[in-house]
Amino acid sequence: MGMKRIICAALGGVLITGTGAAIADEGMWTLDHLPVQQMQSAYGFTPSPQWIDLVQHAAVRLAEGCSGSFVSADGLVMTNHHCANSCLSQLSSTANYMQDGYAAKQEEPKCPEVELNQLEKITDVTDRVNAATQGKDGAERIKAERAIHSALEKECVGGDATTWRCDVVTLYHGGRYALYKYRRYQDVRLVFAPEQGIAFFGGDPDNFNFPRYDLDVTFFRAYIDGKPAKTPQYLKFNVHGPKEGELTFVVGNPGATQRETPWTSLAYLRDHILTPYYGYLSESRGQLWQYSRLGEQQIKEAQDALFGADNSLKVFKGWLETLSDENFIAKKQQEDAALRQWIAADGKRRAAYGDPWAMLEKAQQRGAELRDRYSMIESGRGFGSQLFADARLLVRGADERNKPDAVRLPNFRDANLPALQQALASTAPIYPQYEETRLAWTLEKMRQSLGADDSFVHEVLGTKSPDQLAHALVSGSKLADPTLRMQMWNGGAQAVAASNDPMILLARQIDPEARRLRKQYEDEVEAPSKKAAEMIARARFERDGTSRYPDATFTLRLSYGKVVGWNEKGTPVPPFTDVAGLYRRATDADPFKLPDSWLRAKSSLDLSTPMNFVTDNDIIGGNSGSPVIDREGHAVGLIFDGNIHSLGGDFTFDGSTNRAVAVDTAAIVEAVRKVYKLPRLAAELTNGHQ
Amino acid sequence: MGMKRIICAALGGVLITGTGAAIADEGMWTLDHLPVQQMQSAYGFTPSPQWIDLVQHAAVRLAEGCSGSFVSADGLVMTNHHCANSCLSQLSSTANYMQDGYAAKQEEPKCPEVELNQLEKITDVTDRVNAATQGKDGAERIKAERAIHSALEKECVGGDATTWRCDVVTLYHGGRYALYKYRRYQDVRLVFAPEQGIAFFGGDPDNFNFPRYDLDVTFFRAYIDGKPAKTPQYLKFNVHGPKEGELTFVVGNPGATQRETPWTSLAYLRDHILTPYYGYLSESRGQLWQYSRLGEQQIKEAQDALFGADNSLKVFKGWLETLSDENFIAKKQQEDAALRQWIAADGKRRAAYGDPWAMLEKAQQRGAELRDRYSMIESGRGFGSQLFADARLLVRGADERNKPDAVRLPNFRDANLPALQQALASTAPIYPQYEETRLAWTLEKMRQSLGADDSFVHEVLGTKSPDQLAHALVSGSKLADPTLRMQMWNGGAQAVAASNDPMILLARQIDPEARRLRKQYEDEVEAPSKKAAEMIARARFERDGTSRYPDATFTLRLSYGKVVGWNEKGTPVPPFTDVAGLYRRATDADPFKLPDSWLRAKSSLDLSTPMNFVTDNDIIGGNSGSPVIDREGHAVGLIFDGNIHSLGGDFTFDGSTNRAVAVDTAAIVEAVRKVYKLPRLAAELTNGHQ
Repeated sequence: MGMKRIICAALGGVLITGTGAAIADEGMWTLDHLPVQQMQSAYGFTPSPQWIDLVQHAAVRLAEGCSGSFVSADGLVMTNHHCANSCLSQLSSTANYMQDGYAAKQEEPKCPEVELNQLEKITDVTDRVNAATQGKDGAERIKAERAIHSALEKECVGGDATTWRCDVVTLYHGGRYALYKYRRYQDVRLVFAPEQGIAFFGGDPDNFNFPRYDLDVTFFRAYIDGKPAKTPQYLKFNVHGPKEGELTFVVGNPGATQRETPWTSLAYLRDHILTPYYGYLSESRGQLWQYSRLGEQQIKEAQDALFGADNSLKVFKGWLETLSDENFIAKKQQEDAALRQWIAADGKRRAAYGDPWAMLEKAQQRGAELRDRYSMIESGRGFGSQLFADARLLVRGADERNKPDAVRLPNFRDANLPALQQALASTAPIYPQYEETRLAWTLEKMRQSLGADDSFVHEVLGTKSPDQLAHALVSGSKLADPTLRMQMWNGGAQAVAASNDPMILLARQIDPEARRLRKQYEDEVEAPSKKAAEMIARARFERDGTSRYPDATFTLRLSYGKVVGWNEKGTPVPPFTDVAGLYRRATDADPFKLPDSWLRAKSSLDLSTPMNFVTDNDIIGGNSGSPVIDREGHAVGLIFDGNIHSLGGDFTFDGSTNRAVAVDTAAIVEAVRKVYKLPRLAAELTNGHQ
Repeated sequence: MGMKRIICAALGGVLITGTGAAIADEGMWTLDHLPVQQMQSAYGFTPSPQWIDLVQHAAVRLAEGCSGSFVSADGLVMTNHHCANSCLSQLSSTANYMQDGYAAKQEEPKCPEVELNQLEKITDVTDRVNAATQGKDGAERIKAERAIHSALEKECVGGDATTWRCDVVTLYHGGRYALYKYRRYQDVRLVFAPEQGIAFFGGDPDNFNFPRYDLDVTFFRAYIDGKPAKTPQYLKFNVHGPKEGELTFVVGNPGATQRETPWTSLAYLRDHILTPYYGYLSESRGQLWQYSRLGEQQIKEAQDALFGADNSLKVFKGWLETLSDENFIAKKQQEDAALRQWIAADGKRRAAYGDPWAMLEKAQQRGAELRDRYSMIESGRGFGSQLFADARLLVRGADERNKPDAVRLPNFRDANLPALQQALASTAPIYPQYEETRLAWTLEKMRQSLGADDSFVHEVLGTKSPDQLAHALVSGSKLADPTLRMQMWNGGAQAVAASNDPMILLARQIDPEARRLRKQYEDEVEAPSKKAAEMIARARFERDGTSRYPDATFTLRLSYGKVVGWNEKGTPVPPFTDVAGLYRRATDADPFKLPDSWLRAKSSLDLSTPMNFVTDNDIIGGNSGSPVIDREGHAVGLIFDGNIHSLGGDFTFDGSTNRAVAVDTAAIVEAVRKVYKLPRLAAELTNGHQ
């Protein structure tokens, strides 16, 4: 379940409304509004305030799109191996840690770009946001929204953006606004990662499937002032894992669900966003696959992107299937029709809500017209280069920081600058051949999408081919050097204006058009869509009341459930696998080839140790790396995937087949002790401190 | 418009019904039922029997998926450069004729796999087919159909399958059956091809666009008994091309349209066939793109497939847009509803037609379940290797030829054996690296699609990775040798059984499962779909009468129209481009880089010579290489593409914007004379003989 936040964002701007009464173990609940009565009546368990406080503070979010948890008082963080892909690749200047694993000896190396967020406090700010945007439309509304968000975030950060991060979170598609205050950790170091061969045993063929046998774990450590952070609120490690039928909780950051989205918006998502992107990403996958055949070095360069493409393609395939399912479509259309009738039946409601569906349709028609250019030019799908991304960051950063915080693009508000600086200062290597190839390919896709006669395409390519331009840009740019990037960042508008780096020149050249497209898409598509979604959400809220959870927004949620298998076309699937099964499944070829460490350790292992298990917790992409917690508040597992039926979970939850897939804590401890022979790490896990 | 027949076939088996009154210049008419009254009233022209006879016999079909025409009495054939891609690649053992062009000196080299079909005669066989299949369903129906087709074709060929080819053609989705008797030419030689840089000037960016400047022409020559064939019925070359507004005819072989297909079937096509294939083909494109970067040799190996992928992706994108267009969907649903009501309104009709829509839905539900396995295993999407295709042909050929003609798979009926033998005897080189790479990629796609636990996947891969297996198969197989292939073909079942060639072993190993899937798909999906489509077509026929043309079936059709531009979002697009415009559009980078020959010749050319033009003739993929003919029966142009609006033409014809794109005969003659300096060829074109 490596569906990273970045993917949600790439598809975003559709949207989307949300309410709905929860059934069975369905629901991703905010920690300030847990369904305590439902939990009590289903499982005889009511969490204490201490339990909730512990779980909230032990949970962390990885800013780039995953979840994790503190599992010792000395800042030890458990997350997935696949959530550490970038860090592992970036640290691999000579070795290949993503492929071969890593265990820190004395020094733990710093991940160049990992940031952790620990949720400190939630404050309801609905009234202040509503007061600021009341009666405003289109560009006016976006401006007002940005201004109030900026003011609230600034207030909350209190001048110390290094320590705190604050986000205004839109819940229930505008039914409620909350201010989330996070403790920010930017010094995050690598402690241990196993080999890709066991972390992702079964590879893409097994991804989203079960039975499963993966040790998809990586341990980081948060540092403050060069020392391990003190984290007294951590999850004790239950070295036995859970039992069948046991009550389980998952705390983490589900990325985005669209369970209450009207069919109109889902049809737009399917036809104008998902289908074209599926084609783009498929082609990207083929390109990366073939690039990886050039040698070990190229495997290393492409592996992170290839992993992401495989994973996303499987997700999108599942989405497209759900969004083409006639029964699902009929159900959505009925729900929409019922709500429209409910509004139409009453004059006061008609006056209050108007016809948001008509507004949606109009906005989405406009979206269909603008989408290709927007994706290629502003979302950057036509400029697939890290150097270009850095150049744009520098160019925009220089412009935006000259403006008052309230009118900046959200990414450049003071609250977010530390994250941008961390990215620019990253020592992750940039590979020229990879950069040039990807840039040439994406420039070609842009020309294909916009047409060779498009004036923007002419402006960018001139008389050069995509290959020629990519070569000139990548070989001419010096932005691979983090020192230079930071100099330019610190030098601001003057430094950018003085630069003749070809990537900077390109980013400057296209920025007016990119910004124009962004504003157009925001004003004419996103703003009215959002307003319509809000109207629909409010009408539903008025009709249905409060027994509901908000659609996921990559913020902290708790789901409850139990360890339970399911029935696959008449055959029961048991909830546990064990280490013996791992060895049975192994072959001598990838992705079923076991690393040497596991082949050597076999005789020393307790083969009956549970390896992976499934629960009916309601999770989704972004929950990767979430701990599975028992009623004591101890860690019993580590979420890393969902089964194939979980792919529809973005749109609808089917508790009879949708399952979360986790690594058993028993397997983690067994492996750390006997396969990797790391007694200090094993002791920290069992004792809770170094 | 290189949408080859093979692509239509890959997507086939859906289907599909068809009738409908033609409007404007719409229509692809069979030559035995031309709409003479419509032509007379619109253009004051009624074709004489001699005119029709000339046009029919001057037209040829390229068996692999294009059209062409005789343009001299000595067997000279005009078709598109992109229809000659395979021949040009296959003849390029040392040079690269596809890229660099070719002009025969004395000896004209034989294309290894080109076959031409010249339509001799059409016979209506509706009564005989209906009598044979009356009252039969599912497997029984398929058996009866194959038997009567086999009998009719055998009768027609009269024992001389080298000279004649006969096909039973299903028209109006079973409303009518016709026996098409073709003269077969298997000795086809290469006379002249220009460089890819001018044939496909503008490349993929310009493909399906206009204004356009392509010399997409290749000349072949048909031989009989080692000498140029005598072809007295040829199209004289009008060296001036057509004028604006002039009446134009296009004769050729449109591949497949689905204009009368019910919405139920189109939704199935979109969701279960087109969308998954779009992803597969996109990934394939990325793989080929990156493969081509390995060097000149690899460019040559991949260029034919890459061209095909680009072209098809553009087509499918257009299709997906039409099939997601809300107005189009609503119109189709209304048409279906009206016909259902018309049937329901009358007891006799209800009895005669039943509920074919329910039958369609059931069949397509089954199709959705079977489709992935069927595509991967039987359609060969999981075994992307020429060596494997040859091995399967040998294995099946040995089996099938032992059976009576009437029960064979259609491909192996006596009437088709010469085409198979030509393919097996082909001297086209097989490139080991390319083979191995493509096979590894497709095996991986198969494992991805069916899952690593699938028993068929286990059977094929064993404990090998796709890479390992592909290497073992390609390096171990001797089937790249055409002599060996022909020995094995001639040796029949015994030779196949005795072979230990690993590709033969694989093809034998998987054949039972592949055949089982094929039969299942035919019996449970295709047969009931076909029957339902036939019922719908007959009901529509009873209601609407006869003023209609049948959906395209890659058989000879005539369309009429005129040279006319269109209005693109308020801007008129003139119907002609000229040579001066070509030079204006050229840059120094592919795909807008002119070949040296054109740069050198510029001063000698009449820059006002018309280059390309558009007409509102109703054409579609398969029409590539069709001549554009004036009322005298002279060639004035050469179809090679449609504009972007033509992509919806598979499903609906919009005469206001749908345009065919052609090379002007004036440009062809100017280029042959002055750019390529081929006076003999120029003389043959103007004189009509060598």
